[in-house]
Amino acid sequence: MIRLFVPHDLAAGAALPLDEGQSRYLAAVMRLAVGDVLAVFNGRDGEWRARVASVGKRAVTLEAEAQARPQSAGPDLDLVVALVKRARLETIVEKAAELGARRVRPVITERTNADHTRVDRLQAIAVEAAEQTGRLDTPEVLEPVKLERLIEGWDAGRRLLFCDEAGEAHPALQALKGAAEGPWAILIGPEGGFSPGERERLRSLNFAIPATLGPRILRADTAAISALTLWQAALGDWRP
Amino acid sequence: MIRLFVPHDLAAGAALPLDEGQSRYLAAVMRLAVGDVLAVFNGRDGEWRARVASVGKRAVTLEAEAQARPQSAGPDLDLVVALVKRARLETIVEKAAELGARRVRPVITERTNADHTRVDRLQAIAVEAAEQTGRLDTPEVLEPVKLERLIEGWDAGRRLLFCDEAGEAHPALQALKGAAEGPWAILIGPEGGFSPGERERLRSLNFAIPATLGPRILRADTAAISALTLWQAALGDWRP
Repeated sequence: MIRLFVPHDLAAGAALPLDEGQSRYLAAVMRLAVGDVLAVFNGRDGEWRARVASVGKRAVTLEAEAQARPQSAGPDLDLVVALVKRARLETIVEKAAELGARRVRPVITERTNADHTRVDRLQAIAVEAAEQTGRLDTPEVLEPVKLERLIEGWDAGRRLLFCDEAGEAHPALQALKGAAEGPWAILIGPEGGFSPGERERLRSLNFAIPATLGPRILRADTAAISALTLWQAALGDWRP
Repeated sequence: MIRLFVPHDLAAGAALPLDEGQSRYLAAVMRLAVGDVLAVFNGRDGEWRARVASVGKRAVTLEAEAQARPQSAGPDLDLVVALVKRARLETIVEKAAELGARRVRPVITERTNADHTRVDRLQAIAVEAAEQTGRLDTPEVLEPVKLERLIEGWDAGRRLLFCDEAGEAHPALQALKGAAEGPWAILIGPEGGFSPGERERLRSLNFAIPATLGPRILRADTAAISALTLWQAALGDWRP
């Protein structure tokens, strides 16, 4: 069944006018007609069954019918990722949505090469992936910030797993024990790794845990997906 | 350091003439000169330090100097993956190389849409990823076969984890306990899932274990990377 993220409040009988992009998708691509059923969610009111109430080429309106699944909070994970090449960053955002991250925070590190990000485009990718993967919220993609600024403003109650192949590090799955007990973040460095200064800084933070993802050198997108997978496994939480 | 896969036997003083592609890469892209050092491996003789012995635009020759790491066998995992769209299949092959699979076997299932594969291109991607990730062998990419034919010829000593969201399934990390004890395979279905007949067939096999990768619907590439990550974590083996 088609699932759409909508901004509207969801309640029985609520009219849900869709934007032009979603309207075109339903009318021209999927060829839905009045009366067809789909699922909608807004990140607050759970998932609702909705019907197509009217169809124009650029203006489709749905009507919410009944709640199919109640909203649930979901675990609280930030994926903090160094700006890498556009295609790999887009992959990472898509996978973060599939694997349950609540936020994606691009960061600029000393060895970051890419300096451009289209946060709006990344946000659209996150919403589309959330629609397909069946979650009840959409991950928020934030504006890039410098790593040092991010660390300065860090809430020490949020543990930070950073993937670091140099120096002593715990296997990530062990390091993530207790993942279910509070907010976490996963930090993925750039392809060139962290600088010695950054590494020293990260290792000095008492909320940060160095971890290894295995014996081989992983690309940034692989590292991100692996770390998210292990976090989900450590969580032992199988709610959507 | 640059790492190259070469077909030659490796021994002290051995001359290693490179093919045109590798020669161009070293001479024109990386601008190496006579005397520069790099690493080479052939899947049999471990990793060797080598020096550039002569440079032509299309013909670079190296000389092997000394073994830097001995060959080690590495775990025995087949990634069996339904033919999916080309870009996603290429991603899967790259990640299989990074995450330690020994073979990649594309399969054709009832709901497989893609019917074309360029195995030579996938093999080249696997070799390039193996060079970058630091492993001592390269994964072999096999020709696509039909799922039923693959099952008929299966060696029952190789356990098969198949990812199946319908019906009872074990969390993949639990299902993979004992991963270090023998050969395994991971089977990833097509985007449309297995057919009811395929599902029944798979569930009837005593070497096959149904597993779930979490609460959300994952794309085929995400599922493959997640399953490989959990296999590696269950292995508890951190050798390259």
